Amino acid sequence: MNDRASAVELAALRREHFRLVASVSTRWMDDDVYGHVNNVVYYSYFDTAVNGYLIAATGTDIRTLPAIGIVAETSCRFLQEIAFPDRVQPGLALERLGHSSVIYRIGLFRNDEEAPCALGRFVHVYVDATTRRPVSVPELIRGVVSALPAAAES
Amino acid sequence: MNDRASAVELAALRREHFRLVASVSTRWMDDDVYGHVNNVVYYSYFDTAVNGYLIAATGTDIRTLPAIGIVAETSCRFLQEIAFPDRVQPGLALERLGHSSVIYRIGLFRNDEEAPCALGRFVHVYVDATTRRPVSVPELIRGVVSALPAAAES
Amino acid sequence: MNDRASAVELAALRREHFRLVASVSTRWMDDDVYGHVNNVVYYSYFDTAVNGYLIAATGTDIRTLPAIGIVAETSCRFLQEIAFPDRVQPGLALERLGHSSVIYRIGLFRNDEEAPCALGRFVHVYVDATTRRPVSVPELIRGVVSALPAAAES
Amino acid sequence: MNDRASAVELAALRREHFRLVASVSTRWMDDDVYGHVNNVVYYSYFDTAVNGYLIAATGTDIRTLPAIGIVAETSCRFLQEIAFPDRVQPGLALERLGHSSVIYRIGLFRNDEEAPCALGRFVHVYVDATTRRPVSVPELIRGVVSALPAAAES
Repeated sequence: MNDRASAVELAALRREHFRLVASVSTRWMDDDVYGHVNNVVYYSYFDTAVNGYLIAATGTDIRTLPAIGIVAETSCRFLQEIAFPDRVQPGLALERLGHSSVIYRIGLFRNDEEAPCALGRFVHVYVDATTRRPVSVPELIRGVVSALPAAAES
Repeated sequence: MNDRASAVELAALRREHFRLVASVSTRWMDDDVYGHVNNVVYYSYFDTAVNGYLIAATGTDIRTLPAIGIVAETSCRFLQEIAFPDRVQPGLALERLGHSSVIYRIGLFRNDEEAPCALGRFVHVYVDATTRRPVSVPELIRGVVSALPAAAES
Repeated sequence: MNDRASAVELAALRREHFRLVASVSTRWMDDDVYGHVNNVVYYSYFDTAVNGYLIAATGTDIRTLPAIGIVAETSCRFLQEIAFPDRVQPGLALERLGHSSVIYRIGLFRNDEEAPCALGRFVHVYVDATTRRPVSVPELIRGVVSALPAAAES
Repeated sequence: MNDRASAVELAALRREHFRLVASVSTRWMDDDVYGHVNNVVYYSYFDTAVNGYLIAATGTDIRTLPAIGIVAETSCRFLQEIAFPDRVQPGLALERLGHSSVIYRIGLFRNDEEAPCALGRFVHVYVDATTRRPVSVPELIRGVVSALPAAAES
């Protein structure tokens, strides 16, 4: 997932290493034939956590900005099963803030658990909303992203 | 939607006419190209409201009962747009409790609004978990369904 | 579902009563904990059938028109289970073409079956893409909708 | 994504490097507010491609086997936008077949394009269907997975 973080380091991640954001309610249809939340659905929690944080922290509807964040790469390690009606609390950390990209590390925490049920990586590239060409990360976004805890790198 | 309720009566429905259940968080991907929650997604809120209520009110994992509720018919009137990151509070009322079926009326309430953003109808038929043949509604389910407010019929 | 069609009439509907449109592939995650396609997902087939037909038949990207179709009401009767990897062929019929609305009847046909696995109703209201106020159904849409077989009314 | 493949090597991947499997139809609701298929949805294509191949190639309903494949890790690089009504053809290659795990590389090809619109990695771990403890990959699965083209490693 994160080329620069070892499995040992990732195993030690807890809630305290992340900025916790609004929790996500699971839905009945999130569970698949094996009775747990389908792997695909975890990415909808990631997507919601990142965009929800940006909207809440900037106080702005980011969809109307001249530059929008397009997802360039994501990954997830599935550590523990989740099942409806569990609640999922996402946490965000900042791995890298570049000229036109932001790399988040994401932890998902089930109910009141301290250890994550999933760990992910989420890469946003900012593009002009019309031309879809890369542009620099908007200052408004840059400010709230910088406020996130740093994802330790090895 | 509900053949027996007039449009006038439906227009008068408010939070107080329903048993409010656990709210559902919208997700970034719920919004479609028109910038609002896609019509399909409302049904996932219905599904979650009914099954979530049954699990919470019975204190039982209903998926493990010998009889399970299969959806036979649903409908929805879309009254107001919802968009991420709105929260949705579902409310349930009982239209009819039959031998093997339960008919729910569902209202969805956006954030703190008193008038519903959607009204639905949801028909569960209970079947044997293995043979999938209709059976009577389990007593455990019958108890908590009977506790719901009655959906007024015309 | 359709207030004006009796259950007997609906039970007699076959592929020949619909204009068949592009088939939809089921997905692994469409199946829920009960091992069949979740009820919510059927509505994504409806949504795809209607909009896909409009795009294909008009040869136009309908999302860029000044008037867009917003869903006002839908319903579905679930007649037979579907499960991944079944294929679903939707069929469309026209129940009513009004000033600003179009009411479709939809049948879903599993694999090569002649009888529907689901029957639905889908109401589009056309609104100005910017103000979201009702407007008349665009001529381009009106043309291709009129070409659909009529849904028999009782 | 794949720690052992360089970006240069990945950029050279084409349809011929994969075993192409059943194409997936996009759905209207796959598109998000930015008018393209939401990043989350790509993973539903992956999920469908892998499980669909296993069902088709083994001629067996893999969900009924005593050992089932649970997803341990996935990743995706998003290379080109997809939008409804595009069709997506997935291709599979084998990165590694271990004692209890299978690592797939996945390419997604939009309509008739030769270059992928997305490249992914998908790790299945086989577990006992009841205890959910790791077991060896079933022989039936091992046979059809071995028939996939090898994903070149650097």
